[in-house]
Amino acid sequence: MKIIVDAMGGDKAPGEIVSGALRAANESGVEIVLCGRGEDILRVIEGMGLGELPRGIEIVDASEVIDMNDDPANAVRLKKDSSLAVAFGLLRDGRGDALVSAGSTGAILSGATLIVKRVRGVRRAALAPVIPNTNGGFVLVDCGANSECTAEYLYQFAFMGSIYAEDVLMLKTPRVGLLNNGVERTKGTPLQLETYTLLEKADQEGLINFVGNIEAKDAMKGACDVLVCDGFTGNVLLKSLEGMASLIISELKTIFSNNWRSKFSAVIIKKSMSELKAKMSPDSIGGTALLGITKPVIKAHGSSDAEAISNAVRQAAKAAETNISSHLESIVTRMKTE
Amino acid sequence: MKIIVDAMGGDKAPGEIVSGALRAANESGVEIVLCGRGEDILRVIEGMGLGELPRGIEIVDASEVIDMNDDPANAVRLKKDSSLAVAFGLLRDGRGDALVSAGSTGAILSGATLIVKRVRGVRRAALAPVIPNTNGGFVLVDCGANSECTAEYLYQFAFMGSIYAEDVLMLKTPRVGLLNNGVERTKGTPLQLETYTLLEKADQEGLINFVGNIEAKDAMKGACDVLVCDGFTGNVLLKSLEGMASLIISELKTIFSNNWRSKFSAVIIKKSMSELKAKMSPDSIGGTALLGITKPVIKAHGSSDAEAISNAVRQAAKAAETNISSHLESIVTRMKTE
Repeated sequence: MKIIVDAMGGDKAPGEIVSGALRAANESGVEIVLCGRGEDILRVIEGMGLGELPRGIEIVDASEVIDMNDDPANAVRLKKDSSLAVAFGLLRDGRGDALVSAGSTGAILSGATLIVKRVRGVRRAALAPVIPNTNGGFVLVDCGANSECTAEYLYQFAFMGSIYAEDVLMLKTPRVGLLNNGVERTKGTPLQLETYTLLEKADQEGLINFVGNIEAKDAMKGACDVLVCDGFTGNVLLKSLEGMASLIISELKTIFSNNWRSKFSAVIIKKSMSELKAKMSPDSIGGTALLGITKPVIKAHGSSDAEAISNAVRQAAKAAETNISSHLESIVTRMKTE
Repeated sequence: MKIIVDAMGGDKAPGEIVSGALRAANESGVEIVLCGRGEDILRVIEGMGLGELPRGIEIVDASEVIDMNDDPANAVRLKKDSSLAVAFGLLRDGRGDALVSAGSTGAILSGATLIVKRVRGVRRAALAPVIPNTNGGFVLVDCGANSECTAEYLYQFAFMGSIYAEDVLMLKTPRVGLLNNGVERTKGTPLQLETYTLLEKADQEGLINFVGNIEAKDAMKGACDVLVCDGFTGNVLLKSLEGMASLIISELKTIFSNNWRSKFSAVIIKKSMSELKAKMSPDSIGGTALLGITKPVIKAHGSSDAEAISNAVRQAAKAAETNISSHLESIVTRMKTE
């Protein structure tokens, strides 16, 4: 199993990226291809006290870096020797089994679509993070790749999310919910109404396990394993969760530093609190899968540290191991709405 | 100041509703009109150990109750003697200054629009809860009255939210943000793009204080005082916040009951934790204002207890006192998009 890592993408690149990739290699035995400025990467490896390139680690030189000033939609076309464009080229050519990048979402999306391509028959690739809930987690699809969606896109997201939940989260017949502003079938905009009809039909035909409209708060209580929505709404959902989690964590900090008694209390439960914080953090899961592409692509959070990258590499290895892309190809004909 | 209270609306009606209304009357000196089945209301008052109707409390009999089986859009038309329809009639006729109901959102919305009417020139009424954030709170408008919106609706929501923030939250030149999936002006769907242009123009003309696109997580950090969005997205945002808050609170409960040490720790910070929980709860604020109606209408949470109703009555009194509806009428000509 060989994972291609964009060593130059992300706020903490290349240091934390290289370090996280090496950690994953060391702990789980995957091979790594580090893509980026060779000198910079070697400097990080030297800085880690490693005299030579560890076994199973390869460097592929790429002179350019996609940064915040680049137009995401055109970045991989204009910067052909960027770490991300080269990494996607390697993935397309079979020089690795999956790709991890903490770079710009837009650039990853266009790179994956232009260089590696979507599975034939898939209308749109979708970003699918696993959101922590009382039940372990659910797959949110789409969380921001497609601001505007048709019912057909959402219909396909349901299938792609199901496959991901089956193969990577190891769930049998995952429960698919449609994100809505109420549970009644008459709820939502025409997009939700139309999607509901399509998903209901697919459920009746035994193609997916559709459990109806789901509200965000119920998804957090474990009401479904896959939550389908357009990318605009999914993005708002994700950022709302992040916002509330950080608000509560900052309030807790204030509570625990109130006086010596509360500080004492904080010491007692320090470990549990760190675990809770980690559980609520996007980095704990590793990254967000980009579904619908012919090869597994994992987008790590822009602020990823070594720990997050190491988790993302493991997640990519799992997606490649279970052959999620072939699974999608094998059922894509069932994903047609007509 | 006289507040009309729908005594029969809500999961805990009439007991908690009547009790909350009486509490507000007792503590803040407002007069109350309780609308609903007279016998039921009197029984609650007797149950509170009160021999006779306290001064400033009036009962207006209404024989019917709108329940979950009624179609919200037609309920007030079909049940003319329901507590909600009668309450709205009293408000229209000037028998009270504002209305509070914990009944069905849809029935409140259609009752307010059909019986009390929108301010002339306002396209759609909107639900505007105050969401707790690091800055005290922001007004979210719309959180669910209008699933489908045009840019003109959103434009008007910005003005209505501003007025509410000024008059009820006492903020000078409140900062208005447009909810989006990124801060760049090119973000979002055509709805956000078109709304951005309108709001920017209104800002340049000095009509509102538009601070641009805002992500949900930044609104939670205090980036704006008014957050404008369509009702579908606003509803998802609200329910996502609720979902994350209850997930973390349940995780904290687990942490604190782990062992005797953590239980001991819990005792120390018990008071602060209850305060935090209350702060994150929708009931602490009282209710959600329905903006754009000629008289103040406050929708309390369906699960409201006496405390929540008492807060909602105070909020209604504040909206009536500051004459928010007249304020809206006075600027409605400026809310035209052409």
